[in-house]
Amino acid sequence: MYERMHICQIEGYVPGLQPDSGAIKLNTNENPFPPSPRVMAHLSNILPLTLQRYPDPSAMAFRLVAARAHGVAPDQVIATNGGDELLRLALATFVDPGRAVGIVSPGYGFYSLLAGLHRAPVCDVPLTEAWQLPEETASRWNAAGAQLAFLTNPHAPCGTLFPIATIERLAASFKGVLVVDEAYVDFVDPALGYDATTLISRHQNVLLLRTLSKGYSLAGLRLGYGLADVRLIQPILHKTKDTYNVDAIAQILGAAGLDDRTHASGTWEAVRKERETLSRNLQDLNLAVGPSQANFVLVSLASFDGSCSARQVVTKLMEGNIYVRWFDTDRLRDKLRVTIGTPQENAALISALRTILGRPDGKIGYGRALNVHTCNSHLSV
Amino acid sequence: MYERMHICQIEGYVPGLQPDSGAIKLNTNENPFPPSPRVMAHLSNILPLTLQRYPDPSAMAFRLVAARAHGVAPDQVIATNGGDELLRLALATFVDPGRAVGIVSPGYGFYSLLAGLHRAPVCDVPLTEAWQLPEETASRWNAAGAQLAFLTNPHAPCGTLFPIATIERLAASFKGVLVVDEAYVDFVDPALGYDATTLISRHQNVLLLRTLSKGYSLAGLRLGYGLADVRLIQPILHKTKDTYNVDAIAQILGAAGLDDRTHASGTWEAVRKERETLSRNLQDLNLAVGPSQANFVLVSLASFDGSCSARQVVTKLMEGNIYVRWFDTDRLRDKLRVTIGTPQENAALISALRTILGRPDGKIGYGRALNVHTCNSHLSV
Repeated sequence: MYERMHICQIEGYVPGLQPDSGAIKLNTNENPFPPSPRVMAHLSNILPLTLQRYPDPSAMAFRLVAARAHGVAPDQVIATNGGDELLRLALATFVDPGRAVGIVSPGYGFYSLLAGLHRAPVCDVPLTEAWQLPEETASRWNAAGAQLAFLTNPHAPCGTLFPIATIERLAASFKGVLVVDEAYVDFVDPALGYDATTLISRHQNVLLLRTLSKGYSLAGLRLGYGLADVRLIQPILHKTKDTYNVDAIAQILGAAGLDDRTHASGTWEAVRKERETLSRNLQDLNLAVGPSQANFVLVSLASFDGSCSARQVVTKLMEGNIYVRWFDTDRLRDKLRVTIGTPQENAALISALRTILGRPDGKIGYGRALNVHTCNSHLSV
Repeated sequence: MYERMHICQIEGYVPGLQPDSGAIKLNTNENPFPPSPRVMAHLSNILPLTLQRYPDPSAMAFRLVAARAHGVAPDQVIATNGGDELLRLALATFVDPGRAVGIVSPGYGFYSLLAGLHRAPVCDVPLTEAWQLPEETASRWNAAGAQLAFLTNPHAPCGTLFPIATIERLAASFKGVLVVDEAYVDFVDPALGYDATTLISRHQNVLLLRTLSKGYSLAGLRLGYGLADVRLIQPILHKTKDTYNVDAIAQILGAAGLDDRTHASGTWEAVRKERETLSRNLQDLNLAVGPSQANFVLVSLASFDGSCSARQVVTKLMEGNIYVRWFDTDRLRDKLRVTIGTPQENAALISALRTILGRPDGKIGYGRALNVHTCNSHLSV
């Protein structure tokens, strides 16, 4: 037995299923629309020599594009092999094993898994009933001696957006590094005026995580980046990251994608519109849908008396080749996380749910007059 | 100050320079010949949906190709973001901070840097004068309580190939995980019959590292893999690696490249032939060249009385847009590591060295009759 004892005792992270391309895939929060045509044009121009040679270890060309996009300096940017790598690197760089890491719950399960691998205990602050940050979040993290905290904003899987003033107050009060995981930030309604990038010049402990996986339809490429004060970026860039952590193709295509904000923001607008339509249609099925500023919604099946559990619904949907996400954790067992798909995909989901939940076609859901609250067929999980 | 104290005290790894494509680049051991045309064909067939969706977290399609290539089972294979990621993951999975890591010196500087980041002290066993493994290597690593050891074979930067019997004896004696870094193994003369893959069924502690960076001309792609007993592979695959560590394009192109062994082995044969020619031409300049089974040679300038240091020669070559590698470490300061280039690149190097070292054109180097052992011009570093 060569595996380290504490790793032996850890269960690995279980990502959402990756079914074949024929499936309706609303389970891992990809963008339902394709990447920029400019990305595909750059892809077709990749030369053999680009593959033959090692890539730029510092991904400078990409970082220049990102710096310009956000109005920061290139040395305030770090490129990583997807956002996940930045999460791990933040722990490796700023947290001594044995020291605490702040999280909130519910949340992205990968945070506590990473902390466990790093032998860092988590200080978990539960969100309020309305999925808001409790006033005492920073003081509880500080009391635990946390050197770093992870916060997803907009929050996953809840979808709520914590206002910029809340984030800034947290950054000012928290004594460690505050990693604000903005994986879903591109889908925030611009009318809300949310922009955390200015925080990095005012708070040396704020590390913003961005990714091209969702907003730029490039999950397959594995490209994320961090924005922070140069004192947070430098040790990651020059010491803790693997030398050539971002491949040559990702650097080129990522720069092209990030630079075509017109295309990307068109997909964000379409996702927001679909988010509204899907939420309304789900509510029409008497399902409670939380407000969301992300590219997914959290749907509650609690009103169904447990006679048709969320888990059973997921299984039933899967039999119809529709994939959504269900989490076997507190406060989430009666809910589904549903990625916003294309109009066709969302319509197919609504139609399948209507059948599974025993809703007569089309005429239901306004008010709570329905008495059919059991499942429509025998389900096994 | 948020950076961890011990990281603050570490100097980062400094990779070889990545000059523009016009340079003669013999400094980072890339394959001088392009990747398989099949790789380029697959590249041009990548669909937008492949970029849009998350990749297979387990890289199964690639692992099936690798398993078939090596006659092992897919669950004895792990795909990683370049070989460097596997080195780091091996430490993370098998070494408790504070416990030792075995290395030999000289060697790949990245091993001890990674160990330092992991807070693992290194137990360094110097190679013999002839760059061979001392008999007591395993016992010294064991005495230090090493949980893991890194050994490059063929060795870098020396180029020597440790025989398979030596590796097997080491694996049997060493009590920790033996990572055999076979980054350069494709360039070994097939007549030597070296094949370590059979070791993994006999020794549960052997983890072989392979990469597509050198042998398959795909350094830009970042794709490496490990071969080992399933008990070593499983915890990396399901726990310690980042969820989506290998991007979708690398999985597809990597499988295509590995599957076209005919193309790749043609480049290996060409590199071996050039290795012989270059070595002979360097010896003709009165330079000592160690035997190499890798795609580089280690060239000694020791015979030049220190009046023209290796470092000065590197600088002079760089002024002529030729890049080779020099290491500021014991036993290497008077040497250059020269990647085998194309016939044209190697000829340009020889010509430049002849000028720098003051050799009259073409007529010299047989025997040691030369008395011009000083540099040909003023050098500054």
